Amino acid sequence: MTFDVGIDIGGTNIKLGLVDPRGRVVARRRLATRARRGPQQAMERIAETITNLRRFNKLRSIGVGVAGLVDHIHGIVRVPPNLPGWHGFTVRSTLEELTGLPVSCGNDANAVALGEWLFGAGRGCNNLFCLTLGTGVGGGAIVHGRLLVGANHAAGELGHTVIYGDGPECLCGGRGCLERYVGARYILQRARQRLRAQAKRAEHRNQMSFIAGVGEKPSILFDLASGRLSNVNPEMIGRAARRNDKLALELVQETGFYLGLGLINVVALLDPERIVIGGGLKGLGRPLLVGVRRTVLGRAQIFSGRKLEIVFGQLGNDAGIIGASRLARHLAQPRS
Amino acid sequence: MTFDVGIDIGGTNIKLGLVDPRGRVVARRRLATRARRGPQQAMERIAETITNLRRFNKLRSIGVGVAGLVDHIHGIVRVPPNLPGWHGFTVRSTLEELTGLPVSCGNDANAVALGEWLFGAGRGCNNLFCLTLGTGVGGGAIVHGRLLVGANHAAGELGHTVIYGDGPECLCGGRGCLERYVGARYILQRARQRLRAQAKRAEHRNQMSFIAGVGEKPSILFDLASGRLSNVNPEMIGRAARRNDKLALELVQETGFYLGLGLINVVALLDPERIVIGGGLKGLGRPLLVGVRRTVLGRAQIFSGRKLEIVFGQLGNDAGIIGASRLARHLAQPRS
Repeated sequence: MTFDVGIDIGGTNIKLGLVDPRGRVVARRRLATRARRGPQQAMERIAETITNLRRFNKLRSIGVGVAGLVDHIHGIVRVPPNLPGWHGFTVRSTLEELTGLPVSCGNDANAVALGEWLFGAGRGCNNLFCLTLGTGVGGGAIVHGRLLVGANHAAGELGHTVIYGDGPECLCGGRGCLERYVGARYILQRARQRLRAQAKRAEHRNQMSFIAGVGEKPSILFDLASGRLSNVNPEMIGRAARRNDKLALELVQETGFYLGLGLINVVALLDPERIVIGGGLKGLGRPLLVGVRRTVLGRAQIFSGRKLEIVFGQLGNDAGIIGASRLARHLAQPRS
Repeated sequence: MTFDVGIDIGGTNIKLGLVDPRGRVVARRRLATRARRGPQQAMERIAETITNLRRFNKLRSIGVGVAGLVDHIHGIVRVPPNLPGWHGFTVRSTLEELTGLPVSCGNDANAVALGEWLFGAGRGCNNLFCLTLGTGVGGGAIVHGRLLVGANHAAGELGHTVIYGDGPECLCGGRGCLERYVGARYILQRARQRLRAQAKRAEHRNQMSFIAGVGEKPSILFDLASGRLSNVNPEMIGRAARRNDKLALELVQETGFYLGLGLINVVALLDPERIVIGGGLKGLGRPLLVGVRRTVLGRAQIFSGRKLEIVFGQLGNDAGIIGASRLARHLAQPRS
């Protein structure tokens, strides 16, 4: 059997997989990105890994999803926020030279959308939006049965849509961007602030011992994180929310609300028949989905008979490599 | 020569035109919509007008843009906010029966987008967004060189994208929608409020005659509207702004700012190479364009080399009929 290689390059890790024609991952490798040492060393280690995989498998092509804007016509990375020093790097030609295989490049969230569309929760849709929740908030749209790349390879950037025109500054230079509310670091920031405030209130109550017993129940997140707020992560928040922890539940529902605001804009502009939520923050679990649905269905223009589903992705962490392995066939690529 | 008929049905007027193959309007008619009397009477008057035009011209097809969501596959109007009683009306089959000509239907803002794309300010673009500013705020997107209709014929609804998640309620049931800030009635509301406040301050100053002469200059809008605030309209505000009237200029720039927030979301999600601003509020003039550009270019992710132009439409009030006349060829229309 012939396989395609799918590669997902993030700020911390590079995930690599052999994908069969039916979208199944038959082998996986994980490398450290070592982003600060520049792209060349990463490409060399990727090429080495591929050489090893090639000993026992027939490979046809390589697809690369990169966390940043990618000029897929020329195979060049642009404006990668978590890959400093990679701006302008020619992923395609470098990797083609090192491996001798044809290479295609695209944005990592677009690759996830492609994966979920072809083999996951978005199968059969002509108009789909797929978002990835994690450190950043990305997205990809399928429109008229084709991946929407836009005039500058920058379509689907859900994270930098505005939900509060007067909101706080975002790292992108804008204000009130969705990512500023639902990016992992901001959720964790809010979680820690509230846990700290709760601890303070508890301490205060202990001093006023005469009203002891009236106070709030401490969040189980203190236990889950073994008492260290720096340990708190999205999975813990999700677990606590599923166990009906008030503080965690509020955090997750609030995240769902913000995300819903962003998705109202997707619904209004793109009118997809299905929205797929993928990425690491899926770990926030069903209460997230409930919050998103409540917001979108409560506020967007929902008329009788409107086709609109909001679901979780099905491919989990493999979505990026599965989708990347199919970039070649789904991006127009005139060779220069 | 053979002509196509383009029809633009709004809440107040029906505009009808004969359009030649090069997109030029060779004859125009205008009817009152009389929306409250229902759609049938309007269709009959439209058919009568077409019969008259047919005496001297060869007609090939009819295209109808309607202010509302339009199921273009079945030619049915849905959720038309300014056409009460029209929900569910079968525009296509009724008009086909009355005229014997093939009829296509679509959303009015989509028709404007099609017109500007084919014959106006959007020519040659593969990825375009065209918005119409007026009583409502509509939009249409060209994606991959095709009109984007979406899964429910509801794509491009810029007016109901959210720019302030906690903003005031909108007629659509949402909150903080763009239309709630830049729809004509809301701009005029703000204009009148501020003019009233200015008049009050002036009166107060007159009573305190000892500080006379220190006060602000009264807005020339008082003169333009012959002293009656109910006369104020967008064109007057535009004229006053061009004459550097402080109050009018602030209103227009503020409108440009809000509109810019909405367009940041268009840029992030659709990544068009050009944005065309059409519709009646174009009357607000260049200061509007300046405000929009400042906001979008200042806040959206603009990287070096990004293709993004923001311009006014070129077809003026004809855009709707010109675009409508081309709906047949640009909407997939399987007959049931």
